[in-house]
Amino acid sequence: MLFHVRMDVRLPHDMEPDTLSHLVAREKAYSQQLQRSGKWPHIWRIVGEYANISIFDVESNDELHTLISGLPLFPYMDIHVTPLARHPSDVAQGIDA
Amino acid sequence: MLFHVRMDVRLPHDMEPDTLSHLVAREKAYSQQLQRSGKWPHIWRIVGEYANISIFDVESNDELHTLISGLPLFPYMDIHVTPLARHPSDVAQGIDA
Amino acid sequence: MLFHVRMDVRLPHDMEPDTLSHLVAREKAYSQQLQRSGKWPHIWRIVGEYANISIFDVESNDELHTLISGLPLFPYMDIHVTPLARHPSDVAQGIDA
Amino acid sequence: MLFHVRMDVRLPHDMEPDTLSHLVAREKAYSQQLQRSGKWPHIWRIVGEYANISIFDVESNDELHTLISGLPLFPYMDIHVTPLARHPSDVAQGIDA
Amino acid sequence: MLFHVRMDVRLPHDMEPDTLSHLVAREKAYSQQLQRSGKWPHIWRIVGEYANISIFDVESNDELHTLISGLPLFPYMDIHVTPLARHPSDVAQGIDA
Amino acid sequence: MLFHVRMDVRLPHDMEPDTLSHLVAREKAYSQQLQRSGKWPHIWRIVGEYANISIFDVESNDELHTLISGLPLFPYMDIHVTPLARHPSDVAQGIDA
Amino acid sequence: MLFHVRMDVRLPHDMEPDTLSHLVAREKAYSQQLQRSGKWPHIWRIVGEYANISIFDVESNDELHTLISGLPLFPYMDIHVTPLARHPSDVAQGIDA
Amino acid sequence: MLFHVRMDVRLPHDMEPDTLSHLVAREKAYSQQLQRSGKWPHIWRIVGEYANISIFDVESNDELHTLISGLPLFPYMDIHVTPLARHPSDVAQGIDA
Amino acid sequence: MLFHVRMDVRLPHDMEPDTLSHLVAREKAYSQQLQRSGKWPHIWRIVGEYANISIFDVESNDELHTLISGLPLFPYMDIHVTPLARHPSDVAQGIDA
Amino acid sequence: MLFHVRMDVRLPHDMEPDTLSHLVAREKAYSQQLQRSGKWPHIWRIVGEYANISIFDVESNDELHTLISGLPLFPYMDIHVTPLARHPSDVAQGIDA
Repeated sequence: MLFHVRMDVRLPHDMEPDTLSHLVAREKAYSQQLQRSGKWPHIWRIVGEYANISIFDVESNDELHTLISGLPLFPYMDIHVTPLARHPSDVAQGIDA
Repeated sequence: MLFHVRMDVRLPHDMEPDTLSHLVAREKAYSQQLQRSGKWPHIWRIVGEYANISIFDVESNDELHTLISGLPLFPYMDIHVTPLARHPSDVAQGIDA
Repeated sequence: MLFHVRMDVRLPHDMEPDTLSHLVAREKAYSQQLQRSGKWPHIWRIVGEYANISIFDVESNDELHTLISGLPLFPYMDIHVTPLARHPSDVAQGIDA
Repeated sequence: MLFHVRMDVRLPHDMEPDTLSHLVAREKAYSQQLQRSGKWPHIWRIVGEYANISIFDVESNDELHTLISGLPLFPYMDIHVTPLARHPSDVAQGIDA
Repeated sequence: MLFHVRMDVRLPHDMEPDTLSHLVAREKAYSQQLQRSGKWPHIWRIVGEYANISIFDVESNDELHTLISGLPLFPYMDIHVTPLARHPSDVAQGIDA
Repeated sequence: MLFHVRMDVRLPHDMEPDTLSHLVAREKAYSQQLQRSGKWPHIWRIVGEYANISIFDVESNDELHTLISGLPLFPYMDIHVTPLARHPSDVAQGIDA
Repeated sequence: MLFHVRMDVRLPHDMEPDTLSHLVAREKAYSQQLQRSGKWPHIWRIVGEYANISIFDVESNDELHTLISGLPLFPYMDIHVTPLARHPSDVAQGIDA
Repeated sequence: MLFHVRMDVRLPHDMEPDTLSHLVAREKAYSQQLQRSGKWPHIWRIVGEYANISIFDVESNDELHTLISGLPLFPYMDIHVTPLARHPSDVAQGIDA
Repeated sequence: MLFHVRMDVRLPHDMEPDTLSHLVAREKAYSQQLQRSGKWPHIWRIVGEYANISIFDVESNDELHTLISGLPLFPYMDIHVTPLARHPSDVAQGIDA
Repeated sequence: MLFHVRMDVRLPHDMEPDTLSHLVAREKAYSQQLQRSGKWPHIWRIVGEYANISIFDVESNDELHTLISGLPLFPYMDIHVTPLARHPSDVAQGIDA
């Protein structure tokens, strides 16, 4: 089941550089683990912004919230989730978009 | 080069049913031709809305505008385009997201 | 799996009264069938508006889109869907909220 | 009398972890006491956000404001209340929605 | 129990003058009956707009929706309801504001 | 001459409790003095928010700005003023609404 | 007493040219009469838009609403009124700004 | 003196094809005459929308309004003008940007 | 050439009172010098807000930006500029509005 | 390939003057290097705001994101990118807009 997720990062300007780089490293590891598991099939940078658009593929709403709220940057992001369904014109019938 | 496109369909309520079904059929054929060509790799329905979120993969801004403005439903849609870049955490290195 | 759905009805002012009453009757029958099936556990009127807030309980995003897009009033409504998860403070553990 | 309440938590990033965990624990206890009393029949997490959608069942506007403004997290939340009425298509006649 | 209601009138430009004047006359009679009954204690014109801000005093959300949806102009208005509570600084203790 | 005023209080989270309670006490005294003078005939709490909707009755725009900008909480509030006129359906002819 | 008024004209595209030119002529005459009376001291065109920003100088809110709602184009305009007060840095002391 | 102008075309769906094509042809001729005169140095299509972003180079606000309001499509466009100044980092010193 | 300028002051709550009063005094002197020069013919307080609406009369966009960005409060204000043109109904022909 | 970029600078008020002037100097040098390379053909100040509108000319979305995210002021700006295409009425055929 697919969901469209937009994440905008809002870091406080007074965060310690070490804290920040540690946080970003943990975020990257967490994200890549989910990507490799197939739960997070797409992640794209929005050009010019510290933000991404992602597609998640999960079993349930609860699973999606657990994955997103576990992001190390979760307290520093504005996040909006949009549920997706199969489009009737989609040629990829039944295959994960 | 990837672009995120959201399309919201706004049909006038007084459109003739035949005109409408013909238009929708042409839209579907046009979309599927582009999907098969690889220019339109993803199309998803937004749950509960007559709207879609799509990913286009094109050579240039001009090509993208030509493709979108050729949509049979183009005069009846609100469309917003967001350019995408590769995300530094993306595990699919160089492979089309 | 629960979803929060807000529906705002926007009827064209020149709709024939007979067409309208027939449409509203079909909408009511459709809604009540889904309520009785357990798919649509809650529907509330927003005070002062021709709008409702509903909770749907479905197996998947695709099922939810099928149910909503089948509403007789679907072409005349602005609809927004918000996916819900279990809240950690919810005392109704595991029981459908 | 039912009310729809959306609460978005906005915690200052420099809050002490102990202060925060104490506050969240008090919030949970307060919420669960109201849920058990029947005043707060539903609480759901909005997927991907530090926010909830709740339904309150109270005797009056004054009672509702007293309950909400007593929330330990009240100074850290954006809250919006929407009054609800019985929907004419609701099959749960007279039974609490 | 008090509610703040804003009503913005949006008349179609092609309404027949007779239909319109009849509708406005019925609206006025309906409003004045509710004012005299004490259910609609205040109505003010917003300067420069075809809109009003009103205060209603009702027993319940259901009663308020019944009163508002019975307005002859209801199909031609955008309406937003805000529930009100007693303010702790209000000197009119217990007396209707 | 009546004006509709909405005030949303935005207190900084790091304000000293003593400073805050002193400020709120001065605000209450200031408000009640104006209420008793007839300049501020109505004040209501918006349910669930640290905000009020008020009606002021003043001689001029200048007087209204002087009264509002003298509020002890003025530096901590978002305020929006809407001028009101007599509504043609108002039954309270000439009597203060 | 000064008020800032923004007016945006929204004409239906199917208005008869004669009806329109007659309406615009009446609007101009009405506006110029008020300008000459001193009630409407300033009117400016917003560059690129069919809209104006005006300053009115009136005795009361009721007078302002009477003047604005008497505009021949009133049914075809979105209008927003902002009350103005003397600015403490204004060098034109007591003289109409 | 440079101005940034965004124009969004909103054509009524029931416009006659001949009327429309005539209108668009006149719009193109009008625009190209201004471009050749140097008054309209840039015009770009916004990708995916029936809209453009333009730069005008004029002597005064009045001249700009005259040029824009003379556009054949003016009654069918939403237009927003933003005045531009020389940027302190601009390397094109004194030369028209 | 006239421009409409709205300025909203957003002071940080922790600014030293001396710094603030010095800043406000400099702002007033700067503003009054421009008013006396004829560059800033009108300044009005928006009732109930720490904001003003002003009219500037300048030779060019560059001059206007220089004047506004020189305001002592410039770093603490949200500012929006709207270019104005002569209105065809304006009776003050050729005379500065 | 052209892109329209709006950048709004939001500096924290407590930034050290030396840090700020160093940052602004680096920003200017970075911007001018890109302007001279032809990647950033236009930059304009928005009158009255600490903001600019720019046109970038790049090979790809990825290149654009690399250029923008390398701006020394990037962490302190709200940035929005709009892709541009050739306009059918543009007289500058094939020549850089």
